[in-house]
Amino acid sequence: MNYLNKVIRALIFLCFSCSCFAQVHPNMMLTKGNVAAVRQGCQQYPLLKSSFIKVKADADKAINSPIEVPVPKDGGGGPTHEQHKRNYQNILNCGIAYQITGEKKYADYVRNILLKYADQYEKWPMHPKAKDEEPGRIFWQSLNDFVWQVHVIQGYDLVYDAIPATDRATIEQHLFMPILNFFTKDCYKTFNLIHNHGTWCLAAVGMTGYVLHKPEYVEMALKGSAKDGKTGYLAQLQQLFSPVGYYTEGPYYQRYAILPFVIFAKAIQQYQPQMHIYNYANGVLAKAINTSLQLTYTNGLFFPLNDAIKDKSFESVELVYGVDLAYSDMGGSADLLDIAQQQNQVIVSDAGLKVAKAVAEGKTQPFRYKSMWFRDGNKGDEGGLGVLRYGKNTDQQCVVVKAAAQGMGHGHFDRLNLLYYDHGTEVFSDYGSARFLNIDTKSGGGYLPENKSWAKQTVAHNTVVVDQTSHFKAKVGDAEKYYPKLLSFSDKPGLQVVSVKEEHAYKDVALVRTSILFKPEGADKELLIDVFKTLSDQPHQYDLPFWYQGHITDISFKTVFNSNNLQALGKDFGYQHLWLNAVSDVTDQGYITVLNNKRFYTTSFLAGKGMKVQFVTVGANDPQNNLRNEKAFILSQKANNGCSFISLTETHGATDPIAETVVGSVKRSGNLSLIKDDKQQTSFSFAYKKHTYTVTINYTDNTSNVQIN
Amino acid sequence: MNYLNKVIRALIFLCFSCSCFAQVHPNMMLTKGNVAAVRQGCQQYPLLKSSFIKVKADADKAINSPIEVPVPKDGGGGPTHEQHKRNYQNILNCGIAYQITGEKKYADYVRNILLKYADQYEKWPMHPKAKDEEPGRIFWQSLNDFVWQVHVIQGYDLVYDAIPATDRATIEQHLFMPILNFFTKDCYKTFNLIHNHGTWCLAAVGMTGYVLHKPEYVEMALKGSAKDGKTGYLAQLQQLFSPVGYYTEGPYYQRYAILPFVIFAKAIQQYQPQMHIYNYANGVLAKAINTSLQLTYTNGLFFPLNDAIKDKSFESVELVYGVDLAYSDMGGSADLLDIAQQQNQVIVSDAGLKVAKAVAEGKTQPFRYKSMWFRDGNKGDEGGLGVLRYGKNTDQQCVVVKAAAQGMGHGHFDRLNLLYYDHGTEVFSDYGSARFLNIDTKSGGGYLPENKSWAKQTVAHNTVVVDQTSHFKAKVGDAEKYYPKLLSFSDKPGLQVVSVKEEHAYKDVALVRTSILFKPEGADKELLIDVFKTLSDQPHQYDLPFWYQGHITDISFKTVFNSNNLQALGKDFGYQHLWLNAVSDVTDQGYITVLNNKRFYTTSFLAGKGMKVQFVTVGANDPQNNLRNEKAFILSQKANNGCSFISLTETHGATDPIAETVVGSVKRSGNLSLIKDDKQQTSFSFAYKKHTYTVTINYTDNTSNVQIN
Repeated sequence: MNYLNKVIRALIFLCFSCSCFAQVHPNMMLTKGNVAAVRQGCQQYPLLKSSFIKVKADADKAINSPIEVPVPKDGGGGPTHEQHKRNYQNILNCGIAYQITGEKKYADYVRNILLKYADQYEKWPMHPKAKDEEPGRIFWQSLNDFVWQVHVIQGYDLVYDAIPATDRATIEQHLFMPILNFFTKDCYKTFNLIHNHGTWCLAAVGMTGYVLHKPEYVEMALKGSAKDGKTGYLAQLQQLFSPVGYYTEGPYYQRYAILPFVIFAKAIQQYQPQMHIYNYANGVLAKAINTSLQLTYTNGLFFPLNDAIKDKSFESVELVYGVDLAYSDMGGSADLLDIAQQQNQVIVSDAGLKVAKAVAEGKTQPFRYKSMWFRDGNKGDEGGLGVLRYGKNTDQQCVVVKAAAQGMGHGHFDRLNLLYYDHGTEVFSDYGSARFLNIDTKSGGGYLPENKSWAKQTVAHNTVVVDQTSHFKAKVGDAEKYYPKLLSFSDKPGLQVVSVKEEHAYKDVALVRTSILFKPEGADKELLIDVFKTLSDQPHQYDLPFWYQGHITDISFKTVFNSNNLQALGKDFGYQHLWLNAVSDVTDQGYITVLNNKRFYTTSFLAGKGMKVQFVTVGANDPQNNLRNEKAFILSQKANNGCSFISLTETHGATDPIAETVVGSVKRSGNLSLIKDDKQQTSFSFAYKKHTYTVTINYTDNTSNVQIN
Repeated sequence: MNYLNKVIRALIFLCFSCSCFAQVHPNMMLTKGNVAAVRQGCQQYPLLKSSFIKVKADADKAINSPIEVPVPKDGGGGPTHEQHKRNYQNILNCGIAYQITGEKKYADYVRNILLKYADQYEKWPMHPKAKDEEPGRIFWQSLNDFVWQVHVIQGYDLVYDAIPATDRATIEQHLFMPILNFFTKDCYKTFNLIHNHGTWCLAAVGMTGYVLHKPEYVEMALKGSAKDGKTGYLAQLQQLFSPVGYYTEGPYYQRYAILPFVIFAKAIQQYQPQMHIYNYANGVLAKAINTSLQLTYTNGLFFPLNDAIKDKSFESVELVYGVDLAYSDMGGSADLLDIAQQQNQVIVSDAGLKVAKAVAEGKTQPFRYKSMWFRDGNKGDEGGLGVLRYGKNTDQQCVVVKAAAQGMGHGHFDRLNLLYYDHGTEVFSDYGSARFLNIDTKSGGGYLPENKSWAKQTVAHNTVVVDQTSHFKAKVGDAEKYYPKLLSFSDKPGLQVVSVKEEHAYKDVALVRTSILFKPEGADKELLIDVFKTLSDQPHQYDLPFWYQGHITDISFKTVFNSNNLQALGKDFGYQHLWLNAVSDVTDQGYITVLNNKRFYTTSFLAGKGMKVQFVTVGANDPQNNLRNEKAFILSQKANNGCSFISLTETHGATDPIAETVVGSVKRSGNLSLIKDDKQQTSFSFAYKKHTYTVTINYTDNTSNVQIN
């Protein structure tokens, strides 16, 4: 590492020894030499054409509306907040429209609005709606100011040549220089933080440095305020992603984090190609983009781990940038074009031209979703995320097992959490975050109190809770110290395995989960076999929730739902938010069938002595009606020496409400029978159609081995 | 009427005096003279081509599977039930495949399977799973047997010429004649019922009569067992639809009822064109098809009134037949092609050829959804259904007010119920029926007990409940006696009105509802203004539920949701199924905002003295977990002399979860102020943006008049 550090610093020195950048405009996403080709492409290639039509429509709307630069006042979602957001988008759109059409009115708009900002910016105090976050000047948190500048500086670059030099001087002196000052001094802490807010700050400063020809700011952006490489963009690139490009906060934030990385990288590539930024750290940037896409289900939605907004998809503009640049600048393969087509948009830029052209030439291949283990941690040794997939993109089964690091403040206490998808939809789901993004009447659009009291708690996830207490007692500090470990991973078709272990979530209980996609003879779909083992020398209560989507249509054991008078299931750690609808005793084995998106999902499970199944709905202790009323069945077991939850979930049958037909409503799997279960081995048999299969899992401290015969 | 009766009988006599039908095969949906053209069309016109590919794929699957004719055993959704359903589809598909490809293997399949049926049918007793309904032989209810035969006889007609005469004799003697016997004798009651089950029976008998050349059965089918025209198909056509083609059981059943009418009509047209069946009763058949389509929202789903399955759309095969025949045989207009395109299917038939050809020639026009009043009752004097629409098919507001007759056994107690749609989705919704269609584990796939205890009850609908008691105390017999009346209807753009009155639902309370779509100055969307007036001399408790979809994001008055311990709201009439989540006192006025499908809907309302708002969720007293957990807010008012619920619902703003933007989250309407409210008049004012509007409704006993200034 010491050696590596030296190499990096030498490299950085080398770069800056050549201190004269090429100083032409525009020179970022759209470059001067390519403008003519992009103009032509906007007429020729449908994807670029429609993307430009949209940009131009927005630009036209902007130039036909009065310019409004209000004194910052409102929080997220409020009028001034939204106006300043619109302004930065307008500036960028008008910049692009100017380059493509050559019409000066667009450049004039940018000039005029920037002059208005320049006229006021220095008078604005810190934002009056500042909360816990570092405050901005234009927005309630500095982060939004950084984002604003990343967009605005691109717009400025695009119209640079069309603004009179005196106006440029005004804008630079009274807007951009004060902004650089604010970002590097007032926001010093964030600027030097290894964190995604910091990336936006660095990108804003670095890109502004390039456009304004202020190499000292570029150098700070790349190497940190001290210019020693301990912080700054290059250090972030090394440290914020794992070697496979996984971002520790999880997919939703990975998508968000990626944008400033790729935009700034493109600027670096244009101004300092000798840095070979795309190859930096073994090409981690391309890996991070690919990993972002691999962290979506086939419907385009990101796995909603940690504080995720659930309806966020790879159509998000961050990944439009990512996909366009990965394909055009980083040697991306033709399956990226599939994503670009689904995004139905390209950036009107050099990269967008290449993508739109390739799509028009019919080069698209289906996106190659893969079963993968995504290592977490900048050295790749802090657990990870296991993803198993089976089937075509049009009808894919997908299992996600989370055994990653805590993921900082947005992390949930969900060690060994499992998500399951099929048929384009969630089967076993994650609540995501408790938040109505940007809806002012819901806690100002920010995280709701229930995000902490419910969404982050262990019971909100498909993983074991011990004694109704969350992992690490829901203390981030403790959770940050430990990582689960991988026992085994296999992407072998027909028998895919992810097996993981968590030893620190509870003082005296170890958790081991082995999740398997297995294809029995004569099956169209794979079975999800899940063995969740708890190891302890002490008596405990174990709960394993299955948060399902759809409606239960069959329960094999007697269950009577509470008719009048619902009570909360517990007092703390999220249990206070659960209405208890029913409790049933199950002996030997049981199954529950759910109808979801016109398919049946039957989960069969082995029942230990005294197993109960609890049926719950989210919504208790929710005075402001902030929560969605999701549903789960919870397998609950008291045990003196740990226990194993053994289940298999079968996809079967179909309903066609239009034709009013139902087929395959009866499961073909069942007859679970335990053979052995101790620290070294779990083995059991089950039937599928006429075959009987035996599953054997052998464990050591650091590995596991799965066999099915 | 006496005169009309005579005319009908004379007409019938005339028809049958010419007792020799043209006896060629096939001669129903696909006719001998047209086979060559349809064959050609299956290669030429995409819609016909893809439809035939599907038919042929199903036919190929059938001929490559062993023929199974199991002894009838299971109820709806069970294996023998589904097998016999598949068989009739296979027989029809193979019949079509035979005609189009000319390959004998398809005809052989039909011959072989029908011989198997002929071998067994007479031995089968009444179905062992018979319930309250009239039992069938093949299925648990005779209705399914009728449907089976309607399809099978078409398949037989299609391969008739390819089956050796001896086999035909066997099939006719041992299958079709016993079936005719069963339908006309054992099912005598249904055969002579003016009811949609009867239509299927009549169509089966009539079509079989044509194909087997048994005019006496055709005559019975047309005129009833007694051949006097008091029952039978022609009487049904007169009586089952209103003069505008509305079917009293409501849209879901209208769709279902229509199929035997149109298929049999086509057969009559082929065999006895001199009857001019399409012109019969002022062309009521074409009207019924058009009305079926007008009873859908722009997403294709039928208004889920009465015992409806909610995901049923005009893609349903009944309306594929309906649309194809309406366009090709009944002079239907080019906007039907829009529906055909959305159905993405035509019947492989003479009619399907015409539709597919017209679509291929680019003749399609957008379907013309209209604001309409649909009279109910065979004379058109039994109330009706009011539908108001505004906007393009791609983003349409739609208000439905139900003031129709009870609709027999499948009717709900929902006089003056209101449904509201916008932006492709439900805003204020109807529960539909409580049923998991054909899912055996849910009460055998039939209606659940909660259909009666919940779905039919008044509180499950968006209409006023008095003293927590359903309309007519939920007694069908009483409800069948009375109809609401229309006070006024206007489809004038900018001020559309449906105003209706119900005087018999309660002994001493009259209900008057006036629902308005109004376009204020500067609005993109119309406002839904709703005035629900109750008239009484006695003190009562009035509840008006708003069953909403989406999530509440804003409430203008203090509301605290129950944190622990939920109780049912009442004991009977559906109230026992409501969990009471919160109760709030409201003075003067209030509003509630719901976020639904990325738009905001704010309902502002005037509060009378002592008004409470109750927030509820469905699910109490549901021991088998049969109900969906829908949500409502209920405006509740105690009053000595009736009261008026005055509300306006505004569509505003948008959220874009991909771009993470929110616009227009604040409503622009409000400031409700009551001016006058008595038996003769309700008037009030409200503001929209900077304008103030005054709404004045003047009532007499039989009319109302709405003005907005």
